[in-house]
Amino acid sequence: MGFSFECHASCRQTGARAGVWHTPHGCVETPRFMPVGTLATVKGLTPAQIQTTGAQMILANTYHLHLQPGEAIVEKAGGLHEFMGWQGPILTDSGGFQVFSLSELRQIDESGVTFCSPRDGRIIQLTPERSIQIQNALGADVIMAFDECPPAGAAYEEVVAATERTYRWLERCLNAHQCPQEQALFGIVQGGIYPDLRCAAAESLVKLDLPGYAIGGVSVGEEPELIHKIVRITAPLLPPEKPRYLMGVGTYKEMVVAIASGIDLFDCVIPTRFGRHGAALVRGERLNLKNAQFREDFTPLDPTCPCYTCQNFSRAYLNHLVKSREMLGYILLSLHNISELVRFTQQIREAILRDRFVEEFGGWLDDR
Amino acid sequence: MGFSFECHASCRQTGARAGVWHTPHGCVETPRFMPVGTLATVKGLTPAQIQTTGAQMILANTYHLHLQPGEAIVEKAGGLHEFMGWQGPILTDSGGFQVFSLSELRQIDESGVTFCSPRDGRIIQLTPERSIQIQNALGADVIMAFDECPPAGAAYEEVVAATERTYRWLERCLNAHQCPQEQALFGIVQGGIYPDLRCAAAESLVKLDLPGYAIGGVSVGEEPELIHKIVRITAPLLPPEKPRYLMGVGTYKEMVVAIASGIDLFDCVIPTRFGRHGAALVRGERLNLKNAQFREDFTPLDPTCPCYTCQNFSRAYLNHLVKSREMLGYILLSLHNISELVRFTQQIREAILRDRFVEEFGGWLDDR
Repeated sequence: MGFSFECHASCRQTGARAGVWHTPHGCVETPRFMPVGTLATVKGLTPAQIQTTGAQMILANTYHLHLQPGEAIVEKAGGLHEFMGWQGPILTDSGGFQVFSLSELRQIDESGVTFCSPRDGRIIQLTPERSIQIQNALGADVIMAFDECPPAGAAYEEVVAATERTYRWLERCLNAHQCPQEQALFGIVQGGIYPDLRCAAAESLVKLDLPGYAIGGVSVGEEPELIHKIVRITAPLLPPEKPRYLMGVGTYKEMVVAIASGIDLFDCVIPTRFGRHGAALVRGERLNLKNAQFREDFTPLDPTCPCYTCQNFSRAYLNHLVKSREMLGYILLSLHNISELVRFTQQIREAILRDRFVEEFGGWLDDR
Repeated sequence: MGFSFECHASCRQTGARAGVWHTPHGCVETPRFMPVGTLATVKGLTPAQIQTTGAQMILANTYHLHLQPGEAIVEKAGGLHEFMGWQGPILTDSGGFQVFSLSELRQIDESGVTFCSPRDGRIIQLTPERSIQIQNALGADVIMAFDECPPAGAAYEEVVAATERTYRWLERCLNAHQCPQEQALFGIVQGGIYPDLRCAAAESLVKLDLPGYAIGGVSVGEEPELIHKIVRITAPLLPPEKPRYLMGVGTYKEMVVAIASGIDLFDCVIPTRFGRHGAALVRGERLNLKNAQFREDFTPLDPTCPCYTCQNFSRAYLNHLVKSREMLGYILLSLHNISELVRFTQQIREAILRDRFVEEFGGWLDDR
């Protein structure tokens, strides 16, 4: 089986491309949005429901799964696919982002990061070797290099040091990786907001001929203009015969801009987070289903949406569920929101295949 | 369409019977457990998931739906079936039980009950006429008479008065009912713990030739012996050509005892409530999935159970989800628990059809 990426169509005016990426657990048609299943569950949805959204690949989090239930349990269960009942491709992140953003009392040195478990207070050390060891045990199709993520607004010298360390850590990750045939290890281009550092990082990573490349450090909450700038600079430097993944991004415009630069894969917690807050993504807009305007709105969220929620329920019913704090409200909204973002990337894919990307999605590329 | 009950087999040694009950929204094979969907949602489950449990008929609550979203919204949506996306038979209770058990500041007189809405504090009056009017608007297949439920431990004279009033209120319900062809109005036999009052109530209700009969006032939390005694006295007095429903009961032994007395239908909040508390019903036992003993238990909840949860997930995964307070844990446990109780009644049904009820389920009838 192994991994291979086929490009089926490329846009003549932009870097957009439509392809099929083969992984040991099946194909991923790109460009494509991937839902996040932090603790080996996409919040509120069964694998059967996730499948109906058109999602082909999902994410899980090494940091969270290391803390609970621990990778030993997942490994004994036969790996993540078996443990969580998802037979399609899975990607685990390295835990780096969570260690830097969620943990208290962390110490960073050349060996790795030491932090306090938020669950039971015990001291945990995560190193490149340890992250890969955990990800080998979890058994996802794609695993990510352990990187140092400098905070937003970090000074140039700080980012230089973090980017260089990220490269040295990547080499250690590659050495530690036990099963490159079964699990593809992606490198992550860091470099903060500094174009020259991004370029240098991309260049040195490309030389390692990795099975895939990610752009990190441009996640939810960043200035959209910053995301656009970094992606436009970095993505074209990555080898065309490998999949390209923009980490943590899943807003409409940012995905279109990134696809135009040649990005293939996206992930974001927005669809499930919005769902749990009673909000729906509908054609680029955010609807708050709690609002009284939906009380007697007996139309679906989006009459053109083929998802289970839109095919069976009205905005009035969703308003009732959300107002009543019923679990089913969060479930149905999460189901729709994931379907919506997957479908959006799928529609872009079809436009690229028909050579109509700029005609149909060019509007999103305008600065506004 | 309308309503009709066919008895397909009767036990030679007990009152147990297996039948098919035709309703405007489809058949219910009896005996059968019905899950509760208080606010027009069986907590955490989509209608598609409910269907996979084998549940054929579900309940909703007039009291809760009157408070939120209000019956006017449900009626405008085209009725409960349309509103909640459940195309099978639905039963609504009268709101009586909730008014008496949940509301503060209630005043009871011959006209009805006045109480304070727990949502916004406004004063609401529920009368037999109002309950039926609301249930007519909700549009369930089966609606229940508005009854007075005396508290547990009520004195004889108090229960006499409540039972007599319940009869007068039933007559008013029948007069108020607008669509007896589409909605079957069931009477409820009350009478507390007093056999003579139960018998008298059953006798007077039977004379009204109602489309179905319920036994009320023997709900979750009552002494099992009391439930057995009342059901054994009351059920055989109800006409055999009509369905018999024991309200609020859904424990294994109590269902077998009731079926042996001729009861056809059950409802109970236990499967979803246990599910939300991380507990599973497995062959008569309650398993707390939070317990460390399940951490590395890679077997399903019940290897003989055909439900989605047991076919796809291990106890170790459920332990992980429940410990992580993930919604999916509650969902998968609720799904299993409902399947388990429906399947239990379905297995009893098949035993009755094969004339093997006492042989296969007689053990539950022993006093212990």
